[in-house]
Amino acid sequence: MFEDIIHKTAAWLRGDGTEPAVVVSSRVRLARNIQNILYPNKGSAQEMEDAREFVHSALRKENMLAKGIYVQSEDMTELDRRFLIERHLISPEFRATKPSRGIYLSNDEDISIMINEEDHIRIQSLTSGLNIHRAMEIAEEVDDTLGNTLAYDYDTDYGFLTSCPTNCGTGMRASVLIHLPGLVLTHEIDKVIEEITKVGLAVRGFYGEGTEVLGNLFQISNQTTLGRREKDITDSLEQITRQLIEHEENARRILVRDAPDEIKDKIWRAYGILKYARVLTSEETMNLLSAVRLGMALGVLDMIPLTLLNEILVQAQPAHIQKVAGKNVSPSERDAKRAELIRARLSELK
Amino acid sequence: MFEDIIHKTAAWLRGDGTEPAVVVSSRVRLARNIQNILYPNKGSAQEMEDAREFVHSALRKENMLAKGIYVQSEDMTELDRRFLIERHLISPEFRATKPSRGIYLSNDEDISIMINEEDHIRIQSLTSGLNIHRAMEIAEEVDDTLGNTLAYDYDTDYGFLTSCPTNCGTGMRASVLIHLPGLVLTHEIDKVIEEITKVGLAVRGFYGEGTEVLGNLFQISNQTTLGRREKDITDSLEQITRQLIEHEENARRILVRDAPDEIKDKIWRAYGILKYARVLTSEETMNLLSAVRLGMALGVLDMIPLTLLNEILVQAQPAHIQKVAGKNVSPSERDAKRAELIRARLSELK
Repeated sequence: MFEDIIHKTAAWLRGDGTEPAVVVSSRVRLARNIQNILYPNKGSAQEMEDAREFVHSALRKENMLAKGIYVQSEDMTELDRRFLIERHLISPEFRATKPSRGIYLSNDEDISIMINEEDHIRIQSLTSGLNIHRAMEIAEEVDDTLGNTLAYDYDTDYGFLTSCPTNCGTGMRASVLIHLPGLVLTHEIDKVIEEITKVGLAVRGFYGEGTEVLGNLFQISNQTTLGRREKDITDSLEQITRQLIEHEENARRILVRDAPDEIKDKIWRAYGILKYARVLTSEETMNLLSAVRLGMALGVLDMIPLTLLNEILVQAQPAHIQKVAGKNVSPSERDAKRAELIRARLSELK
Repeated sequence: MFEDIIHKTAAWLRGDGTEPAVVVSSRVRLARNIQNILYPNKGSAQEMEDAREFVHSALRKENMLAKGIYVQSEDMTELDRRFLIERHLISPEFRATKPSRGIYLSNDEDISIMINEEDHIRIQSLTSGLNIHRAMEIAEEVDDTLGNTLAYDYDTDYGFLTSCPTNCGTGMRASVLIHLPGLVLTHEIDKVIEEITKVGLAVRGFYGEGTEVLGNLFQISNQTTLGRREKDITDSLEQITRQLIEHEENARRILVRDAPDEIKDKIWRAYGILKYARVLTSEETMNLLSAVRLGMALGVLDMIPLTLLNEILVQAQPAHIQKVAGKNVSPSERDAKRAELIRARLSELK
């Protein structure tokens, strides 16, 4: 399964959009539920099956199956699910095997829909760079399209109703995946995270809620969904992201001013190791890619297109390595294969 | 001083001779004193000056000045002396400023003579690879040549007399500089050193007596000088060196068998870091060069001629960096210049 997308470059990895050197991607997700069917975890097996079939019919009827694929959870292996998490197309929570789940993925991977995760429907749109409003447009379009066929559970006071009350109202979460090596290296990151949290945003790891920060990549998202309009949420996230970018750029200037040799050394060594290592763990790879990404932004390196860096970031993950190998591979074999893949990708350059 | 030899490749760095991938060089030194003059540390200022003038005359008379240079200690700076220690041409002990010292260096740097170190005369010959007998021949030739003019202090019972009684007899010390990364990585080195010490040899660091081991390079030398003929000493050192090489090669086979990816990784990373780093300390450089040397011997790398590796080993040392810069340079500047030098040298390849 998904063999055709392994080597494809998802739209959000193209390194375009605003500020793509700092903001890797922008994401919007909408939580929706169908009227008169109990929500996942509460509904019966039959209800879950019904909910999935309703969504599937809507996808078919609205002609979305022509622009993407629909896959039922029972047709996916554990490896497939980890693969989709690594591509940021499904949530880590969706890794669990539960009956009557399903996903829809657009060909460009800019749209994904999880069926029967925490809610009946989770629409996600993912764009490259700082592009929250565009992500919002795409998600709303999908929302409207499905809404033609499906009757969403909606309350005039509470807005869209969701499994977890914290998602009520807009049912929306907007987030950016942002690269903050400067703030990490200058030890300012904790202070900055504290500030961000105070203004009602959440700071999370590479794969979202409950995951660790890897390669200095942070996910920043709104917490409040109730009592605010969608545009207020995206505007405020965008504004704070721009402030974060400014902080980050300031930190980078300080690094370059105070320790130019050390910072260049760190960047060039990272490049040298990626280029020649024979064994690379996931975590080390993320850290080395972070240094190289910083190097590109500072103009220390100039030979690696952002798209290639983003592609490697995704392809070097464990499930991707195994999907390419076509089998489960032990961690140590994986580290060798990862190094091999990265050498091959970097040798494409000039 | 010595500006003309900074960029020259000393004969012992050429990577020829027997087993040059394991044995970097072979060295013989002979201690001699002149009759009827008190030895250094005991003699008067005038006697030391006389001793130096006797040796200088002999060098002139025997036409050795046409094939090398003679320099008096008062014409050398502290940096010059450290530079000569790094080239293995004088002993660390000779770094001290004492009156009436002098040195002779042949153009190829295969012969050096220290005047008024611990003895009036210390003849050293240095050859590439495992080549103790050739080193002995060269040293004996110089010994005979100087002996035409000078009357050595010699006793029919004790042989050549020396400042320190442990050097009496032949006055000879033979040594090899040997690269033992396999024994270090397999943690067998301590056992092997113990064995070697038991059979009467000494194991020392990179710059000889009282210096630390750098880059897995060990100096093995005879301890006994009295009651044995020169050929017995060199034969026994050669024999033990051959056993050491066998041990080392065995250790390398074990490494390659048990951890092929890890060992390749270590080697390729070392190459990548040397090639791209912007800051390199002396010690790290020695360790990286050691990994690359091992890589060449194992056939993991094939692009770096042994001569180039040997040259870098010498040129990357602190006093060399400063001689090239033409001034004293702070340690952190030195680390940047060292990285720059190594990048330049490696970029000469293909």
